[in-house]
Amino acid sequence: MRRTLLTPLAAGLVLACATASAADAPTVIPAQAVKTAEQLRDRAMHDDTAYRIVEGLTTEIGPRLAGGPNDQRARDWVVAKMKALGFDKVYTEPVSFPLWERRSESGAIVAPFPQKLVLTALGYSPATPKGGLTAQVVAFPNLDALKAAAPATIKGRIVYVGARMTRQKDGHDYAIGSAVRMGGPVIAQAKGAAGFLLRSAGTDPHSRAPHTGVTGFTDPAKAIPAAALAEPDADQLERVLAYGKPVTVTMDLDCGLAGTYTGANVIGEITGRKHPEQIVDIGGHLDSWDPGTGAIDDGAGVAIAMGAAKLIHDLPQRPDRTIRVIAFANEEMGLYGGRAYAEKHAAEVARHVLGTESDFGAGRIWRMSASVKPQARDAVAQIAKVLVPIGVAYDPDKPGGGGSDLSQMHGKGMAALSLTQDGTYYFDWHHTSEDTLDKIDPQDLAQNVAVYAAYAYMAAQARGDFGSAPGAFAHDGAGE
Amino acid sequence: MRRTLLTPLAAGLVLACATASAADAPTVIPAQAVKTAEQLRDRAMHDDTAYRIVEGLTTEIGPRLAGGPNDQRARDWVVAKMKALGFDKVYTEPVSFPLWERRSESGAIVAPFPQKLVLTALGYSPATPKGGLTAQVVAFPNLDALKAAAPATIKGRIVYVGARMTRQKDGHDYAIGSAVRMGGPVIAQAKGAAGFLLRSAGTDPHSRAPHTGVTGFTDPAKAIPAAALAEPDADQLERVLAYGKPVTVTMDLDCGLAGTYTGANVIGEITGRKHPEQIVDIGGHLDSWDPGTGAIDDGAGVAIAMGAAKLIHDLPQRPDRTIRVIAFANEEMGLYGGRAYAEKHAAEVARHVLGTESDFGAGRIWRMSASVKPQARDAVAQIAKVLVPIGVAYDPDKPGGGGSDLSQMHGKGMAALSLTQDGTYYFDWHHTSEDTLDKIDPQDLAQNVAVYAAYAYMAAQARGDFGSAPGAFAHDGAGE
Repeated sequence: MRRTLLTPLAAGLVLACATASAADAPTVIPAQAVKTAEQLRDRAMHDDTAYRIVEGLTTEIGPRLAGGPNDQRARDWVVAKMKALGFDKVYTEPVSFPLWERRSESGAIVAPFPQKLVLTALGYSPATPKGGLTAQVVAFPNLDALKAAAPATIKGRIVYVGARMTRQKDGHDYAIGSAVRMGGPVIAQAKGAAGFLLRSAGTDPHSRAPHTGVTGFTDPAKAIPAAALAEPDADQLERVLAYGKPVTVTMDLDCGLAGTYTGANVIGEITGRKHPEQIVDIGGHLDSWDPGTGAIDDGAGVAIAMGAAKLIHDLPQRPDRTIRVIAFANEEMGLYGGRAYAEKHAAEVARHVLGTESDFGAGRIWRMSASVKPQARDAVAQIAKVLVPIGVAYDPDKPGGGGSDLSQMHGKGMAALSLTQDGTYYFDWHHTSEDTLDKIDPQDLAQNVAVYAAYAYMAAQARGDFGSAPGAFAHDGAGE
Repeated sequence: MRRTLLTPLAAGLVLACATASAADAPTVIPAQAVKTAEQLRDRAMHDDTAYRIVEGLTTEIGPRLAGGPNDQRARDWVVAKMKALGFDKVYTEPVSFPLWERRSESGAIVAPFPQKLVLTALGYSPATPKGGLTAQVVAFPNLDALKAAAPATIKGRIVYVGARMTRQKDGHDYAIGSAVRMGGPVIAQAKGAAGFLLRSAGTDPHSRAPHTGVTGFTDPAKAIPAAALAEPDADQLERVLAYGKPVTVTMDLDCGLAGTYTGANVIGEITGRKHPEQIVDIGGHLDSWDPGTGAIDDGAGVAIAMGAAKLIHDLPQRPDRTIRVIAFANEEMGLYGGRAYAEKHAAEVARHVLGTESDFGAGRIWRMSASVKPQARDAVAQIAKVLVPIGVAYDPDKPGGGGSDLSQMHGKGMAALSLTQDGTYYFDWHHTSEDTLDKIDPQDLAQNVAVYAAYAYMAAQARGDFGSAPGAFAHDGAGE
């Protein structure tokens, strides 16, 4: 083997140029990596590992309310499953959060037409007095109307907000529903309301399953009982209100804060062969709301990430970089797992090469967008090209937010994709008793795994990075 | 005016011939009656009286469990509404039945994977011991497998039967589901089972709303706790059973018999101008199961009949025969209202010219069939012809059973139609919390009113009868 000897000065110049060119040169996915990614993609389309994971998790554990009786069981289950799949490292990182418990809930119209109302308490709602809170209802069609209302019309009453959502592929109406659910109770409390009800933040106008979810209460001293009505019950309340007589409702909620709980993010890795310290993040969140079994929200996300990593694990050799699967703790009650992860790993953000989380159900991925440095756009286009045959369109004009928990790491400067699932029916079932395994189509789930396996592998093999650096994507608009 | 005088003998002969010819001559709908029926039909398609009735009943009263807190309120409501609509006579006829109450219900898998199961107690189920009945599950795919099972495999266990139904326009799979629900608990009890569970007799595989309904228990001493699992919960139980380990379930039902209740059939009439004693029967049942508000089962039926009668009431003159609308008591727990009516009116069966009840939801009527005497077939064809433009096809080969409660009067010999509704989605919601007003399409309901108004008017105007006579249709196959 021949060697060219350089003087120290020349060697220094070459090194400087190499460093400059490493930052400025376009990031590239090597042809062999693209080929392997295509194979991973095609294999994933016929692989049922992810489906078996979400099936097992929802069958053997079921509902996984953060800090609830299944929190530890679910973590143990995922740790054992990651080990059984042969992940190279499996560990947990503690996540602490306020514990909120749901014990019982019921509601009724008391007058003028006595009858039951199907409702569910919202996260961080305090309990009503024993025997229930009974008060006259004051109704608003939307959040703006509540904002504009004089406190005198609200004081001592149960505020009802009846805003509606409709089905969309990208689920953008959730902005309406979540704003009412998060902000409505806070505004109502500030104006002196005794309680708060909303039309469920959901898209199935015929479902009697109410949609729970978190409120924006941050101070227990400024919280009022808050619950969501099932859609037909919201219709019923509105019909009764339309008679023009005073309408009295009772809500009987036994729920509330119960100290602090320490759970954990569960992490499993396929360790990189060349750059084990460089990480491609994928994941979902392990907690779920309690009425369903957390299949689409977000057993599916955890399963998609684990299934993708398993396919990469099964390749003849490890990828260059580490594939890290994170099953986040307590996403539902305030991104606690995602925030804990971002805080713990903020200093390493430049080593988190690219990341994205699956947390929008189990529908097929139809769109990819990215927040990466300009020099990595071609590499993203290479990734996109591999995904075209399975129905994914690349939108180069949208940022990539990284998903729910990983949005926090993206906020620290991690380059991120968004892999948008078809969410047409997601908000029919989201946060309700209807979030069960039967809502997942195994073929659709497999397509998700194909996307995650192909993307994660190509990111792990890329020559060059995607621009992760402290504060790198602070103004990319992904958070808006 | 000239008179022809007859000898008494000749007069007797003429009378005999007239009687013979009245019985043998074809029944005919006069042309003017057909024309008026067409006008009624067209008017009904744009009339919202029936929708306002079912809206008011389900909003102002809500669930109407037979003998429950709303039984009297619902009867009072219908009496007041019939009077407000201007019916000529409004009255009630008492109906007594065993009172069954539902107080609370819950269920869970205890082992190997503890989690809640969504279930609902079946009618006539006794309560479990306080704290619940906990036992190992023995599963059967269908009723035949349960029938074939050795009692030793069942004794002391909770029997589960997992038979499935699928959606059909004529709902014929309900034969499967209702057979399991009615017969399953009885067979299980006879073989020593401690409890009984079935996969809900429903057709929405994704609904977490379990389907209640009556069991076949007749002897309280031979009844065991019996409940229906929601479909996803049945799936879950089957998945857990598939692990091959013993599966223990608990069911905690507080429900049961509580004496005898006397309710009533509510009856309203448009009195016949020429033959007030001759009756065309239409109706629905006023009771409902308790989880929903009884919109499709059977607020719709009551509303269709009332809406049709109201249109006939509003004609310039009363019809020749009486139109009788019956809102039956307690259909759900054993046709008590229908049986009481048939017993009370058995001697008058020949005067009940033709009848049919609406009790299959609020979908459009697509088929008509009839059990009438041969000489009335042409008149039925005349009725059918008026209904063709609104999508009703006449099947001359099928009998007409008269519907649920009126099947009892048909059994006594009343000529009867069947006006079959589109039941494709009926068993998605039937006997569940999902039976709410939003499931009714006002236009579809109006089509039903059009059919009932046109048929009832033509039957009231027919020259000749339809063959009602004691025992006339005992072997027409309608009950099979």
